[in-house]
Amino acid sequence: MSANCKIVEENLAHGVAIITPPNGLSEKLSLAARAKRQLIIKLGFDPTAPDLHLGHAVVLRKMRQFQDAGHKLVIIIGDFTARIGDPTGRNKARPPLSEEEVKENAKTYLAQLSKVVDTNNLEIRFNAEWLGSMTFQDVLRLLSKMTLAQILQRDDFSNRYNNSIPISMHELLYPLMQGQDSIVINSDIEMGGTDQLFNCLVGRTLQEAEGRSGQTVLSMPLLIGLDGVEKMSKSKNNIIGLTEAPDQMYGKAMSIPDALLPNYLDLVTDFSLQKINEMRAALADETLHPMEAKKAIAHNIVKQYHSPELADSAALFFYNQFQKKGVEDKSYIPVKSEDVFQANASTTLVALCSKLQPGMSKNQIRRLITSHAVSVNGKKIEDPQASVSAPVDAALKVQIGKRGYFFIS
Amino acid sequence: MSANCKIVEENLAHGVAIITPPNGLSEKLSLAARAKRQLIIKLGFDPTAPDLHLGHAVVLRKMRQFQDAGHKLVIIIGDFTARIGDPTGRNKARPPLSEEEVKENAKTYLAQLSKVVDTNNLEIRFNAEWLGSMTFQDVLRLLSKMTLAQILQRDDFSNRYNNSIPISMHELLYPLMQGQDSIVINSDIEMGGTDQLFNCLVGRTLQEAEGRSGQTVLSMPLLIGLDGVEKMSKSKNNIIGLTEAPDQMYGKAMSIPDALLPNYLDLVTDFSLQKINEMRAALADETLHPMEAKKAIAHNIVKQYHSPELADSAALFFYNQFQKKGVEDKSYIPVKSEDVFQANASTTLVALCSKLQPGMSKNQIRRLITSHAVSVNGKKIEDPQASVSAPVDAALKVQIGKRGYFFIS
Repeated sequence: MSANCKIVEENLAHGVAIITPPNGLSEKLSLAARAKRQLIIKLGFDPTAPDLHLGHAVVLRKMRQFQDAGHKLVIIIGDFTARIGDPTGRNKARPPLSEEEVKENAKTYLAQLSKVVDTNNLEIRFNAEWLGSMTFQDVLRLLSKMTLAQILQRDDFSNRYNNSIPISMHELLYPLMQGQDSIVINSDIEMGGTDQLFNCLVGRTLQEAEGRSGQTVLSMPLLIGLDGVEKMSKSKNNIIGLTEAPDQMYGKAMSIPDALLPNYLDLVTDFSLQKINEMRAALADETLHPMEAKKAIAHNIVKQYHSPELADSAALFFYNQFQKKGVEDKSYIPVKSEDVFQANASTTLVALCSKLQPGMSKNQIRRLITSHAVSVNGKKIEDPQASVSAPVDAALKVQIGKRGYFFIS
Repeated sequence: MSANCKIVEENLAHGVAIITPPNGLSEKLSLAARAKRQLIIKLGFDPTAPDLHLGHAVVLRKMRQFQDAGHKLVIIIGDFTARIGDPTGRNKARPPLSEEEVKENAKTYLAQLSKVVDTNNLEIRFNAEWLGSMTFQDVLRLLSKMTLAQILQRDDFSNRYNNSIPISMHELLYPLMQGQDSIVINSDIEMGGTDQLFNCLVGRTLQEAEGRSGQTVLSMPLLIGLDGVEKMSKSKNNIIGLTEAPDQMYGKAMSIPDALLPNYLDLVTDFSLQKINEMRAALADETLHPMEAKKAIAHNIVKQYHSPELADSAALFFYNQFQKKGVEDKSYIPVKSEDVFQANASTTLVALCSKLQPGMSKNQIRRLITSHAVSVNGKKIEDPQASVSAPVDAALKVQIGKRGYFFIS
């Protein structure tokens, strides 16, 4: 292996949580060099959730590195299952999507993808193309390649089975569908979060059952969201979206919990490996203040998803809004008024707070309010039913408990 | 319920091992009476095994009773799975059948069926008609109606799972296919042996998931074969085939083990319920000699599958061949020469015996021969490699151990 190849491999392996099998990346890169061909790098996407955030970008930024190293990205749009929805019809949260909705979501997705990868230089495949034309006989052939014991190795299946929580028979087939995608596009590498490891390995098993070399699986770490606890996820309201406005993005990045800074340096910024290591060391020996690290990360994020100029102006906006006013020790989360006030109407304090802190129960919030732990524009309010008006000219500052600072405008 | 209906129901319930649910037969009969319609009685048939024997006839004779009571039989030919064979390709004993082979087997099957039921008055359906046109999406919908825990209630699945014996994923789908057949033909009752109970109940579950009344399952007892141990089955060589020649059939019936006579009276003869009960009682208090019961049963079987005249002549043939010659205390099993001698060539004694007694290992047979327990035409032979010629004019009598008497002609 040339020295150059070695550096490429080190960069590609950096930040990956698990490579399966351990020598798989190395083998695939050697194979590509020997055969003088591109590797096929697969990523699946669920078209029911087209809003991308920094959590998705962890995987996408790694995809970009492969693209820069000359390999071929294939994005699989999982339209087959999205168009079926929940076959039992019981789960109202999973209605079947129409062909138009899938296409619309895919377009939105591509637009967001373009913020990280070169969308002019990748292949998009819709898996209904092959799954939709499979007959019952084809399904039986596919299923015959794996055993029940192999499928029940998936943690959520085995946990549910062992705890007598029903598993509908059709659910057992989803990993096999994802695996069939790998057979059809002949992927060399499949990317995913660590929570996708099992499903990706099914693709490897199925490819090997066909007598081919099985794909290597690169599992990226899951990014913890702004709440500092849960995986970044829209439903947890703890995300920074890839298409958020520069000021919003910067402000949210300023609320990253201190403990997560090394993590965000690794997974979110595009700083050089050397710079990341220096900053992590400086944070560890406290020669770098967390607030300064946060500013650097926030600036870097806006630079990546917008531009250096917009990053500069977002930093200035933040300084003017908050730091000048002496709130530099707190990190306010900017919130859009229309996200928490319906049609600019007023609302009760408890309703407002539970929109701002969806992780808390209404009872928890009521207790915080009655124990003087909630203030609006610096003034403590003890009545959960107190009416709060939507901000008109001036922004509304709401503090909930010790750590929840919101800036609504 | 009229007295007449009550008698019909008693007759239909007689000899059934399990009725699920217990009041299911009664309910379906009342339903038919109220709605003035026929019940749809379903029986599935695997077209890979077209040789019917008295074991199958246990279920068929019950079907005939329903037919005589005015109900409609629907025979499902399971050509969908037969034409797939073993999807893994590993099981050479399950090659895929061609359309022609399936049709040929179905024809043979119908011809044999006609010995028990009125084949001019039933419906035949091939399940590839509906299973073959199901898409992957249809399969998912079907699977979504049952949980893994429900499927793993099937004994052979749970035993294998608990003993770490692999279950291929596709195997889990077979009970659901059989259930889909029940949905399509809208069966009121499904018949089967007790070993089919689970699969039949899946049909009931699926019909109920569609919001319909679920089929009642009538499980007939499994008939023990002539060896007195195993379920009657061609692979165990312990059968009386429905199309065997009258003399062969009579002779084999004369080898029914004494202990099984009450069982055969119930499940195999078409004697009246009163006569069966009288004979069972007489056997129990030893006022009826087992040999006499056997003659009555043998005659009845030949009468059912051939004619009263052929039953009379088979009885006479048996008397002339065996009883006159003083072997009335032994029951010789008639064997066709071509079944044990290849092209009338001679063979070794050990090879001949292992064809006659397929349940014994060659080593067991060698030990019997060397310990003087095997005789040919009354003469003991000690050499396992001794050559035995196929019978030309006179029949060949072979005795193996204490209970194996064979009459080869």
